[in-house]
Amino acid sequence: MTSPLTPLHSRYAAIRTRSVALAAPLSAEDCSAQSMPDASPTKWHLAHTTWFFETFVLEAYERDFTPFHPAFRVLFNSYYNGVGEKHPRPQRGLLTRPSLEDVLAYRVQVDERMARLLAAAPHDMVLCSLVELGLQHEQQHQELMLTDVLHLLSCNPLFPAYSPAADVVAPAAAGPLAWRSFEGGLVEVGHAGGGFAFDNEGPRHCVYLHPYALATRLVTQGEYAAFVEDGGYRNPQLWLAEGWDWCRAQGLERPLYWHPEGGGGWRTFTLAGLGLLQAELPLVHVSYYEADAYARWAGARLPTEAEWEHAATQGGADPLEQLFGAAWQWTQSSYAPYPGFRPAAGAVGEYNGKFMVNQYVLRGSSCATPPGHGRASYRNFFPASARWQFTGLRLARHLG
Amino acid sequence: MTSPLTPLHSRYAAIRTRSVALAAPLSAEDCSAQSMPDASPTKWHLAHTTWFFETFVLEAYERDFTPFHPAFRVLFNSYYNGVGEKHPRPQRGLLTRPSLEDVLAYRVQVDERMARLLAAAPHDMVLCSLVELGLQHEQQHQELMLTDVLHLLSCNPLFPAYSPAADVVAPAAAGPLAWRSFEGGLVEVGHAGGGFAFDNEGPRHCVYLHPYALATRLVTQGEYAAFVEDGGYRNPQLWLAEGWDWCRAQGLERPLYWHPEGGGGWRTFTLAGLGLLQAELPLVHVSYYEADAYARWAGARLPTEAEWEHAATQGGADPLEQLFGAAWQWTQSSYAPYPGFRPAAGAVGEYNGKFMVNQYVLRGSSCATPPGHGRASYRNFFPASARWQFTGLRLARHLG
Amino acid sequence: MTSPLTPLHSRYAAIRTRSVALAAPLSAEDCSAQSMPDASPTKWHLAHTTWFFETFVLEAYERDFTPFHPAFRVLFNSYYNGVGEKHPRPQRGLLTRPSLEDVLAYRVQVDERMARLLAAAPHDMVLCSLVELGLQHEQQHQELMLTDVLHLLSCNPLFPAYSPAADVVAPAAAGPLAWRSFEGGLVEVGHAGGGFAFDNEGPRHCVYLHPYALATRLVTQGEYAAFVEDGGYRNPQLWLAEGWDWCRAQGLERPLYWHPEGGGGWRTFTLAGLGLLQAELPLVHVSYYEADAYARWAGARLPTEAEWEHAATQGGADPLEQLFGAAWQWTQSSYAPYPGFRPAAGAVGEYNGKFMVNQYVLRGSSCATPPGHGRASYRNFFPASARWQFTGLRLARHLG
Amino acid sequence: MTSPLTPLHSRYAAIRTRSVALAAPLSAEDCSAQSMPDASPTKWHLAHTTWFFETFVLEAYERDFTPFHPAFRVLFNSYYNGVGEKHPRPQRGLLTRPSLEDVLAYRVQVDERMARLLAAAPHDMVLCSLVELGLQHEQQHQELMLTDVLHLLSCNPLFPAYSPAADVVAPAAAGPLAWRSFEGGLVEVGHAGGGFAFDNEGPRHCVYLHPYALATRLVTQGEYAAFVEDGGYRNPQLWLAEGWDWCRAQGLERPLYWHPEGGGGWRTFTLAGLGLLQAELPLVHVSYYEADAYARWAGARLPTEAEWEHAATQGGADPLEQLFGAAWQWTQSSYAPYPGFRPAAGAVGEYNGKFMVNQYVLRGSSCATPPGHGRASYRNFFPASARWQFTGLRLARHLG
Repeated sequence: MTSPLTPLHSRYAAIRTRSVALAAPLSAEDCSAQSMPDASPTKWHLAHTTWFFETFVLEAYERDFTPFHPAFRVLFNSYYNGVGEKHPRPQRGLLTRPSLEDVLAYRVQVDERMARLLAAAPHDMVLCSLVELGLQHEQQHQELMLTDVLHLLSCNPLFPAYSPAADVVAPAAAGPLAWRSFEGGLVEVGHAGGGFAFDNEGPRHCVYLHPYALATRLVTQGEYAAFVEDGGYRNPQLWLAEGWDWCRAQGLERPLYWHPEGGGGWRTFTLAGLGLLQAELPLVHVSYYEADAYARWAGARLPTEAEWEHAATQGGADPLEQLFGAAWQWTQSSYAPYPGFRPAAGAVGEYNGKFMVNQYVLRGSSCATPPGHGRASYRNFFPASARWQFTGLRLARHLG
Repeated sequence: MTSPLTPLHSRYAAIRTRSVALAAPLSAEDCSAQSMPDASPTKWHLAHTTWFFETFVLEAYERDFTPFHPAFRVLFNSYYNGVGEKHPRPQRGLLTRPSLEDVLAYRVQVDERMARLLAAAPHDMVLCSLVELGLQHEQQHQELMLTDVLHLLSCNPLFPAYSPAADVVAPAAAGPLAWRSFEGGLVEVGHAGGGFAFDNEGPRHCVYLHPYALATRLVTQGEYAAFVEDGGYRNPQLWLAEGWDWCRAQGLERPLYWHPEGGGGWRTFTLAGLGLLQAELPLVHVSYYEADAYARWAGARLPTEAEWEHAATQGGADPLEQLFGAAWQWTQSSYAPYPGFRPAAGAVGEYNGKFMVNQYVLRGSSCATPPGHGRASYRNFFPASARWQFTGLRLARHLG
Repeated sequence: MTSPLTPLHSRYAAIRTRSVALAAPLSAEDCSAQSMPDASPTKWHLAHTTWFFETFVLEAYERDFTPFHPAFRVLFNSYYNGVGEKHPRPQRGLLTRPSLEDVLAYRVQVDERMARLLAAAPHDMVLCSLVELGLQHEQQHQELMLTDVLHLLSCNPLFPAYSPAADVVAPAAAGPLAWRSFEGGLVEVGHAGGGFAFDNEGPRHCVYLHPYALATRLVTQGEYAAFVEDGGYRNPQLWLAEGWDWCRAQGLERPLYWHPEGGGGWRTFTLAGLGLLQAELPLVHVSYYEADAYARWAGARLPTEAEWEHAATQGGADPLEQLFGAAWQWTQSSYAPYPGFRPAAGAVGEYNGKFMVNQYVLRGSSCATPPGHGRASYRNFFPASARWQFTGLRLARHLG
Repeated sequence: MTSPLTPLHSRYAAIRTRSVALAAPLSAEDCSAQSMPDASPTKWHLAHTTWFFETFVLEAYERDFTPFHPAFRVLFNSYYNGVGEKHPRPQRGLLTRPSLEDVLAYRVQVDERMARLLAAAPHDMVLCSLVELGLQHEQQHQELMLTDVLHLLSCNPLFPAYSPAADVVAPAAAGPLAWRSFEGGLVEVGHAGGGFAFDNEGPRHCVYLHPYALATRLVTQGEYAAFVEDGGYRNPQLWLAEGWDWCRAQGLERPLYWHPEGGGGWRTFTLAGLGLLQAELPLVHVSYYEADAYARWAGARLPTEAEWEHAATQGGADPLEQLFGAAWQWTQSSYAPYPGFRPAAGAVGEYNGKFMVNQYVLRGSSCATPPGHGRASYRNFFPASARWQFTGLRLARHLG
């Protein structure tokens, strides 16, 4: 008779299973291709998340650690210099071996070893926190699997759907746009303790906020279409200088995955395939530059991350909609360490801190974020030019 | 009772079957990846060769022509402007759909339609010559399938073998190096009629040759290793200026697929995997620049294509070895039209003529060339920097 | 008898004269060349600063405005979309016409027209503030003239000195390194009114600072040499990920303008020519990435701009040295708008605001900054990779 | 009383003087700028041609050779690896020092030393032939000075004229287009001895020519305008594949230096400034790709270099016009060694031979070629994409 799983092991099994389930609609060929250096093959995600457990947990805890395959240490290392060499990122799509089947076998073996370990040391707090980090890490890659495969499929003139079910990761629409005011003052932000958080969410600390207002919902696709039709992509006065140069160099005239229709409307490519633009849904797939230009056109600005977090943690009569589960929301805050920030010791300390330059913080979570993964103190970050994530915006205004 | 196949149909079936057989050692993932813009996925080769028959034969001959899939006309068009749009070459590896299975079904269907057509009009000479062109075309792609998959596998740190059989496309060694002299004078070159030839092999015409000598066999890997060890890649006096710049810009120090060993020797990556350099085998995987530099180091030069062809068609007491089936042999002849050359009418006229600039002619055939495909008047051509083909050299000297 | 100059006109004359004096050691050829897209020819600086007065002042105030040359509006527009077209930045060095002589004549004519205008409307406050903006702008370009010509001369294997006087823009050394602590709390930063400031220095606003310490002087060249010799450029653990990639891609091993000597020491190229590194002088010519890596190696960090400004405005017993006149000091603050920031109306509103993305704020001023140009609220900004400015760093630490 | 100059010294003095005279309409700034890596500053040409005499003549013949400046050996070495290091070609425009004045002083000093040498050893045949090579080299650079300065001035929106005299290097028009036939057969080409020739013009050797016809004059600007207006730049069937890709990648729609006028006509930029296209003058500033496309559109082809040379040396009743002094004429011949070609020993052997790959031969001479410099066996060569030279074409046809 087997003993019941510990809660952590149950959670481990559920999250690990979900990753494989996300790959189910895809062929081995789909899982192996890489459409641009920023995106990774599904197979690579499946292997790398497993590598994380093997390298950071099993290697530290197994008595007679033997790797599944000695070459995997390099092949599936993403960016941890502390672990050693890594396969060049732009060439991940050339790894036709190991096969998808081999990678799934790798997952099964590591999962079995993890099960033994979790059963043997259920109360080891360092182990549990490493495992939880690995699970949060895997959830981040679950979102990337969806954004990366969407990009891959968008490069195919056949426009294949990831899944024909029209409601795959489609967020709900919200009510009419309203503004909610916040007094600001000296407030606290950052993870307050209680539950998991990444190192970059702390330390909790004081910030002084001037009075501001936030839109109660996100900018919609219909609102953004009005900006496009008003010549938003042809007026340099609306753009940051770098954004304008970026836009001109690539000849951009609309968000990623928008296709003009003969009659003047738009089709958008989503995980459900090519379909009519849905005006009331939140805008996604815009860069920081586009979000900033739209805000200027609308007589508003992007919020800071502290404004966003403070607002997200206030109760109130006219609550903010679409904080989570709709689209990642660009803030005007550059990704920087909080006062007193210290990365964790060892190679896992490379998780967040070394990326704190030339990236912008996004808050909330998107329709592709795994359920339960987001929280008010969460700091996502991407370069200002990134468009292939589910990125949108919420308007803000200065009061006073 | 079915009637026996015509000779052309038998030949069609045999060649078409061989293409699929060449893909047999590969997974669907292997067949879908593209390692560089110059190389194509195996799956793309399998589809494009089928597209050739569908577009240039079936579309012209079938009464109620219906394409297998309307999008394939664009997806699998290589470079025929006369046919219309084409999918961008560097993105062939992103076509995870259609799947390998779909492409194999495409082959089956086109083969059935071709069978009906060949049975119905066995004596249509225009048809027969188009079919023969399609088969020669498919044989060219059979060689490319091997060179392209070798390049793909070489990018994988696991160095997987295409086939572990050590004798996959490995040519035999030849005897000791000797020189054979030719008087030259006014000679004829070009296809003489009788049997298939590409349009670029004609018209047959007169050329005046000065007295010259050719090496009786190709340069070996061992001879080239001596060049490398003598500092051949560090001495600009041996190189064409453009070749030296190319070499320096990429930091090249050896042929493609050569790996230095700790002890001073070499391993080479071949279709059989990573193994010790075999000194007596013909050198392959060098560019025109490297072939030219080696020849200068050896006090010789590359032959012209007319010298090569004239020599290849002479009988004699000390015959030339390794003319065919070993390695394509760089000549110093730029790829240019023969006097009076006219490309065929229509889109198939784009087959050869439009590439006659900045490429160099290679003669003979390689270990990867399908049996029976080569002939003395055959003109292969690649840019001077190409290395991923089975390209080697035979030395020549001016007499006079 | 001429009336005495107004104070603004005197200031105008002095600053305008200084620009021409800075070009005096240079030939017409030196003044015309552009060594990289980020740098501009001296002649272009001399013309563009004149264009600023002609376009933003004379065009608005002269009754019968006639431009000196109609093409100059485009040729010498730097980045003002509101003014219209502009000559491509990377091609400024191809403008051998107008000649240096013509540009100097342009300056003389505009100066005469400005003199008439200032005499006629000495109390027009809008005019005076536009003129002051033009003068501050010209002072910024005076520093750029020196940094750009230093870069140009550094590209010449003859290593010509801008001026052989060894003390050209060489800052004084400071005392031994000490740390000064600041309690922080809720403080005010930003321009306090009284005297000129750029729009990006306001509005003055509250910021909450956690306790911190700053080094009393800048990092010296000798200290940085120890970092280099300790393998600082070969250890990825010290670097931001993007900085490490940048460093590797360019093969960097030392600051800009450092040249290794045979015996293990260093020579540096300065405006006085090539000379021995002066260990006690402040480090200059490092990027944000290098400044950040050094700080990590030294167990410290870069200050925020608010920390720097707050510290710079405190009196005290152990004052901070080298706040001004030594080197621009990288801060960890991304260049962003202050709360409530609004750019000025019209084309001059493009002066600062549109650059507020992917740049980092530098505080203080350098040895090349014109006397009197710096102040505590001044916000200089450059991309993280910029090295050709006089950029160094002051260490900071978190207390708490 | 001084003795009269030897004929060689007179010739030396005349040619050297002409180089300086060509720079006379230019300012020091004009002479120092480099508009693209392929072009060099006038000042560099003036110095490099002097370096040629100093390095290859004076260094070999002067007893106590002391260089004018030790750094010049590297600075003004173009591409001779046998001489040692060289300054990077794309950075020639950054050499604001030495000044133009210094370079002119360099010329004066070397000319004086050359005068002494020529007076002392007037009958040294090796010396005389090196001097003659240096003079021919200088004449080649005289043409490059004009083509390079034309390119530089064309980058300036002011479109300054090199010389306002409308007839600067403008060739005369020719008569109506006719065709002249040649029987061909076994003919001799290559330099026949008697007078100077570059090493690449020999050995004289036999070539077999098939019957062909050549146009009696060059293609005119008006004829080419008809090609442009007929959609020549939009029809891929007219182009070599590489030419079409090159054309599309750069968005080309017309020859270099052509500017469309509002009303449908053309202006062209020449050394005399911007003026109306002169329909009857020979076309210049087209690449090999454009020349080849035009010929195909016109139902003709480019001649081979042997056809051209053979025709140019035949007398006859209907002579070929514009063989020399109009435009360099693209041939379909790749630049390759003649049978038995051997470069000269030593560094001067790098003059021609090492460029014999991926370039095409041009025959004749242009309006910018110094008088007396051309001859029937002359082989000029440029890459297929070169447009900034005075390059045009003469049509050819196969007879047979």
